[in-house]
Amino acid sequence: MIRKAFKMKVFPDRVEEYAQRHHPIWPELSQVLKHHGVSNYSIWYDADTSALFAYCEVESEERWTAIADTEVCRRWWKHMQDVMHTNQDASPVSEELREVFYLV
Amino acid sequence: MIRKAFKMKVFPDRVEEYAQRHHPIWPELSQVLKHHGVSNYSIWYDADTSALFAYCEVESEERWTAIADTEVCRRWWKHMQDVMHTNQDASPVSEELREVFYLV
Repeated sequence: MIRKAFKMKVFPDRVEEYAQRHHPIWPELSQVLKHHGVSNYSIWYDADTSALFAYCEVESEERWTAIADTEVCRRWWKHMQDVMHTNQDASPVSEELREVFYLV
Repeated sequence: MIRKAFKMKVFPDRVEEYAQRHHPIWPELSQVLKHHGVSNYSIWYDADTSALFAYCEVESEERWTAIADTEVCRRWWKHMQDVMHTNQDASPVSEELREVFYLV
């Protein structure tokens, strides 16, 4: 199992909409994530900076990366691009964070 | 089990020192954390903003809060105050984050 954390950014006036669209996420997206070995995935909002801090546990980097190639993920990105910072392909602007401490 | 995430801030030129002091943390601090029901505790560094994102799982808010009253924790805070933003009592400046999504 690999721990991952990354930072995204939501538009400050759309955070409630962002949260609502995640309660729940589409069942088919949930399924894609689980089938690609993702678990214990939480996303946290920092009101100060509108940053979204994501933490999850994945089986491998390869399976994690493969999610981006699924039709469901691409559709989800498009669905979410009006509420958050995105790249040209509608993927969220995302920055990997470096783990500096771990306690089991 | 309760998931928690919070944000702290390290001095940008002290992040390597911060990381080094956490590899490992003092055994007695490790023990205090475990004895207070803390597990799966990771801290992540965001180079853009010098923020530290902490994620952990705790048994109760009460037990988590009680850590601050231990001698070991107070000593650790003092030990770390030259590398990070702290309050008057040497505790790290810390901001709780709001969970906006969770997938088991």
